[in-house]
Amino acid sequence: MKKTAVVLSSGGLDSTTCLAIAHDQGFEVVSISFDYGQRHRTELDAAKAVATHYGVNKHLLFKVGLFEAIGGSALTADIDVPKGRSADEMTGGIPVTYVPARNLVFLSYAVGVAETHGASDIFIGVNALDYSGYPDCRPEFIEQFAATANLATKAGVEGETPLTIHTPLIHLTKAQIVEQGTALGAPYHLTHSCYSPLPDNSSCGECDSCLLRLKGLREAGLTDPIRYAVAA
Amino acid sequence: MKKTAVVLSSGGLDSTTCLAIAHDQGFEVVSISFDYGQRHRTELDAAKAVATHYGVNKHLLFKVGLFEAIGGSALTADIDVPKGRSADEMTGGIPVTYVPARNLVFLSYAVGVAETHGASDIFIGVNALDYSGYPDCRPEFIEQFAATANLATKAGVEGETPLTIHTPLIHLTKAQIVEQGTALGAPYHLTHSCYSPLPDNSSCGECDSCLLRLKGLREAGLTDPIRYAVAA
Repeated sequence: MKKTAVVLSSGGLDSTTCLAIAHDQGFEVVSISFDYGQRHRTELDAAKAVATHYGVNKHLLFKVGLFEAIGGSALTADIDVPKGRSADEMTGGIPVTYVPARNLVFLSYAVGVAETHGASDIFIGVNALDYSGYPDCRPEFIEQFAATANLATKAGVEGETPLTIHTPLIHLTKAQIVEQGTALGAPYHLTHSCYSPLPDNSSCGECDSCLLRLKGLREAGLTDPIRYAVAA
Repeated sequence: MKKTAVVLSSGGLDSTTCLAIAHDQGFEVVSISFDYGQRHRTELDAAKAVATHYGVNKHLLFKVGLFEAIGGSALTADIDVPKGRSADEMTGGIPVTYVPARNLVFLSYAVGVAETHGASDIFIGVNALDYSGYPDCRPEFIEQFAATANLATKAGVEGETPLTIHTPLIHLTKAQIVEQGTALGAPYHLTHSCYSPLPDNSSCGECDSCLLRLKGLREAGLTDPIRYAVAA
C-alpha cells in the first residue's frame, strides 16, 4: 500500500512543486488549502485545479477565520500590498504581507489531518532563500515544529512512526525550484502567485510575489505560462 | 500600562481557574474560545459568561472547522462518549475523547492573537495529573511549543520579548486547582465541564469530565454549584 502524505497547497509555484515532488516519490497525496481571508480566491481555485491535475486522494479546504479577526497583515487586512520589493524585503526585515503565525496554524492543521489519515509525512513548500523574510519559513522553525508535533500527537506517545515535515524546497533558489518542478512536469500553467490579481485573474506583475516568481523563471531560462497585466 | 495576556478559555473549571490566576496577576485579559464542532454549545456560553464576569478586554470566539472535517474523536464525531472512566483513561492510553492536534491548533491561534495584540503571555489550563491521557497536555509538549512559537513569530527574530506559555495548573491535582480557584473567587457557578450535557444544560455526572470535576471538588471539600442530572 502506498504511504499517504499531507501536502499544504496554496496553488502557487512552490507548493505545486512540492506536490509534484511528493507525487514523484510515490506518496498518495491529501492536499490541504486554507481560505484565511486572503483578498482574492484565485489561489484557492488554482490549488483545486492542481489537485485535480494530480488526481489526489483528497483535497481539503479549511476556512480559518483567525487572520481576518486579528488583522495585522496586508494579505488579509486593509493595508496596501506594496509594489516592487519593499525596503523590508530587501533588508531582511519582516514585510507587511507577513501574516502572524500563519505557517504555525497551517502546519498544526496538517498535523491533525495527518493523524486522522494515518499519514506520517507532511510536505510544505517553505523556502529560506527567496522567502520574503517571513520568520515562519526558517529551517529552525520547521525543525522545532516537527519536534512539537510529535509531542502533541499519538505518534509521540505510542511509539508509532514519528511525523516527518518535508521541506524539499527550503534551500533552493526560486530558479532551482522551477527547474525541478519543470523536470517533474509540474502544471505551472494552473498556478497562481500574485498578491493583487486583476478582475480578469491576470497577475499584476509588480507585487513581491510576482517579482520573485518572474525572476525565478527568468533565471531558469523559462517563460511563465500565466497571464500578466503588465509586460513581464 | 497593564500587560496583556491571552487566555484560552473553554468555560470549564481549569481554564476559568487559569483566567482567575491571570487576572489576579494583574494582566489585561484577551480570552479566546473555539467552536470546533463539539457536540454541545453550552461550554461556549459558559466561556462567554466567565469573560463577562471578569470584564475582560476582549473575548474572541473562533470557528475551527478542522476537527469536524477530519473526525476521529468522540467529542466531534459520531463516536459514543463513554460513561465512567474508560479502560484507556485508567491505564494511561489515549481515550476516544482525544481530539487530534487540538491543543496544537488552539495554541497556534493564541500565538497569532498574542502577536497582533502586543501580548507576550499566553495562559492555558492544561494539566498533567488529572489530565485524561491527552498527549497534548504534557509539560514537554508545552515547552517545545513555546520554543516553536518563538521561532514562528516576530518576537523570535527581532529580539522582542519572547512569548511565554503559562501553565499554572500543570502540576496540580484537580482538588488543588479548585482550591486555588476558590481562593481567588473564580465563578465556578458559571462553568461547564460535561461532555454530554442534557437538553436542559444540566451535566450528566457520568462522563469522564464530570467524574474528574466531581472528584476534585469532593477532595477539596467543596460542593459543585452547577446542576447534575444524577445525584452527584
